[in-house]
Amino acid sequence: MTRVLVTGFEPFQQDTYNPSWAAAQLLQDKPPAGLEVTAVQLPCVFTKSIPALRSAVLETDPQFVVCLGLSPRRGISIERVAINVDDSPGLDNDGQQPVDEPIVPDGPAAYFSTLPIKRCAAAVQQAGIYSEISLTAGTFVCNHVFYGLMHLLATEDKQRRGGFIHVPHTPEMPAVSAYGVPSMAVDTAAEGLRIVLTTVAAHDTDIKVPWGTTS
Amino acid sequence: MTRVLVTGFEPFQQDTYNPSWAAAQLLQDKPPAGLEVTAVQLPCVFTKSIPALRSAVLETDPQFVVCLGLSPRRGISIERVAINVDDSPGLDNDGQQPVDEPIVPDGPAAYFSTLPIKRCAAAVQQAGIYSEISLTAGTFVCNHVFYGLMHLLATEDKQRRGGFIHVPHTPEMPAVSAYGVPSMAVDTAAEGLRIVLTTVAAHDTDIKVPWGTTS
Amino acid sequence: MTRVLVTGFEPFQQDTYNPSWAAAQLLQDKPPAGLEVTAVQLPCVFTKSIPALRSAVLETDPQFVVCLGLSPRRGISIERVAINVDDSPGLDNDGQQPVDEPIVPDGPAAYFSTLPIKRCAAAVQQAGIYSEISLTAGTFVCNHVFYGLMHLLATEDKQRRGGFIHVPHTPEMPAVSAYGVPSMAVDTAAEGLRIVLTTVAAHDTDIKVPWGTTS
Amino acid sequence: MTRVLVTGFEPFQQDTYNPSWAAAQLLQDKPPAGLEVTAVQLPCVFTKSIPALRSAVLETDPQFVVCLGLSPRRGISIERVAINVDDSPGLDNDGQQPVDEPIVPDGPAAYFSTLPIKRCAAAVQQAGIYSEISLTAGTFVCNHVFYGLMHLLATEDKQRRGGFIHVPHTPEMPAVSAYGVPSMAVDTAAEGLRIVLTTVAAHDTDIKVPWGTTS
Repeated sequence: MTRVLVTGFEPFQQDTYNPSWAAAQLLQDKPPAGLEVTAVQLPCVFTKSIPALRSAVLETDPQFVVCLGLSPRRGISIERVAINVDDSPGLDNDGQQPVDEPIVPDGPAAYFSTLPIKRCAAAVQQAGIYSEISLTAGTFVCNHVFYGLMHLLATEDKQRRGGFIHVPHTPEMPAVSAYGVPSMAVDTAAEGLRIVLTTVAAHDTDIKVPWGTTS
Repeated sequence: MTRVLVTGFEPFQQDTYNPSWAAAQLLQDKPPAGLEVTAVQLPCVFTKSIPALRSAVLETDPQFVVCLGLSPRRGISIERVAINVDDSPGLDNDGQQPVDEPIVPDGPAAYFSTLPIKRCAAAVQQAGIYSEISLTAGTFVCNHVFYGLMHLLATEDKQRRGGFIHVPHTPEMPAVSAYGVPSMAVDTAAEGLRIVLTTVAAHDTDIKVPWGTTS
Repeated sequence: MTRVLVTGFEPFQQDTYNPSWAAAQLLQDKPPAGLEVTAVQLPCVFTKSIPALRSAVLETDPQFVVCLGLSPRRGISIERVAINVDDSPGLDNDGQQPVDEPIVPDGPAAYFSTLPIKRCAAAVQQAGIYSEISLTAGTFVCNHVFYGLMHLLATEDKQRRGGFIHVPHTPEMPAVSAYGVPSMAVDTAAEGLRIVLTTVAAHDTDIKVPWGTTS
Repeated sequence: MTRVLVTGFEPFQQDTYNPSWAAAQLLQDKPPAGLEVTAVQLPCVFTKSIPALRSAVLETDPQFVVCLGLSPRRGISIERVAINVDDSPGLDNDGQQPVDEPIVPDGPAAYFSTLPIKRCAAAVQQAGIYSEISLTAGTFVCNHVFYGLMHLLATEDKQRRGGFIHVPHTPEMPAVSAYGVPSMAVDTAAEGLRIVLTTVAAHDTDIKVPWGTTS
């Protein structure tokens, strides 16, 4: 059995639902074959999210960690790089808004995901579920947790792999009809994420196919 | 007199025009008060662009360096961070397509711009010209040059500041009508860039205002 | 004095603010020279919006009518055409959601704006405020009101001109930081709209410049 | 056997390939069960496209007509409405650029597609292929042909149904890597279009599900 930690976020602000947490629970309830998934909810709060993540890692001792977040994108959006800066466009769930603060003072400017990101995105796409490689996870709590995860793994346990994935809104969420943000049913997102977990468990190395952007 | 090096790119593939080079020339021809601008054209080629940039820096000995590139964005797009990877979505002007290669093996994962990026973007906006902070310069020759510049400055001369800015297409370029990419007249782009250069020359430090994104 | 009717909408759903109504009020409070502007708020309700508009037109007897709505776009977005269908992506403020219903049974499929739309957009742009021509006003209450207005003018009073304009969110609205929708300060939007009103008052005919899209 | 006419366009400007024509040919070569598909290529020229379409309709006497065009969208994009205006953002393949000219003087402002558009989009989506309802086909040759088709059917033969569908670029086309326009393999597009043709052949009426936008 391969132990996997999957985190999702609590609902943000007025939202009463967060697909990243719903998907994490679906993965725990019905994990891919051969994997044992523990789902842990993280607070959408700068100061509390990384400590909560660290506790969860220590407690579950997973082979790899996948943190999930919500984003107005249109599929399983696999992040490539976390950067060492908080620049919050609004208040977090504790009413805080750090601006241009390093996440880890004197930490490296960035960390790359250690998941085989292109192999995962290609596998999800082959199942007919939209997936993409993303070059920025923003500068809010998602990037904060992603950077915190990679720093933790780099400094405390280099064997453990990890990364961050954004999932879309669900069709029922108000932002979909009000602002036209793209959406995906959470069951479809979970199905795509199961393929990700299976792919990560089976492969240490990535495939070398072009998946970049000009700008 | 403050010496400034501004680079632009040669036309890409079938294009016969590159607004990044046209804007660089306009800045040299009509620099902001108190600045002496040298415009240098870089090849749109992975292997040749950084050596050409390095020669230009050594030759002109500028107080700061601003590299320009073309992007389907809608204004003066000031890049925040360069990442240490080439992942070319197509061929460069030498017919090469590096995929998932580090720009500098064993170099840091990323460098942040050392320009006061928010102060610049705010000043350009105040003049009624659209400007934004960008969190990714892509993984093509633009990011390659940006990373190469910041590595050069970090390792060879820590006093010199530098950064990268994307400018939009011009209204006459075929991509504007064919693909609906946004555009800006090159004179307007040059006017915005003059404000950037003046701002960089006058200020070592940035302003601390929120300008991030959730994802 | 040229009498002008400008309508805006009440806040939609949980929103407590609607920039379309705020802008309408700013135009009434500080109209362009030579114009008398009456601002009227319309309910964001399919069944009630057109009757309210009709009453306002009869009461104010304006030379021309400009209806405003809110949209996640990035500037003064001047609509070209209203289509004869309601296809609501969600509930209106009365909890109704018409789907694929004609606005006026046996009415024409569409009406074009009778404002000089390109002249207006060009004038706003010349003032350094972003403006665009839009080819769809959607299928929610905005398009409903736009179609209702044009049908009213076509059938009851062919001298009166009218059209519809979408304005962006304001920077303080939650959707801006949460979903990255573009924004514009309401004072800037009002300034752009003053230019629109002045242009409409001064010109019966449009300029003939290309402003279309391939698709 | 149900006879179907499917049109695609010749390559536009410097392009050497047009997925709309490639897809039309694939449909002719391997039609859905029970359908006989004739593929006809239309010139990307305002003045010649509608006469060529009319000839093809008269010659093939189809039960329904589906015209295809290329667009920088991300799936099978089913158009809802054609408007009576040419406003060309650039030159067509004959070097002409009509601006604000009616397609049919004194024709109605718009025509709605007479295909069951939502039923088609839903069927394509159920097969795991991205599909959407579009509210504007632009103001270039695509909208021109769409309007011409619907006017032809409305005035010459009310039994025949017809509509317009945009297909995406293919991954190999330069615009995909250069401008980041979305893409879809032409075989996938053809598979989605086969589902469309089968759905149109089997159903006269549409389903009544919300699929609109707020703006």
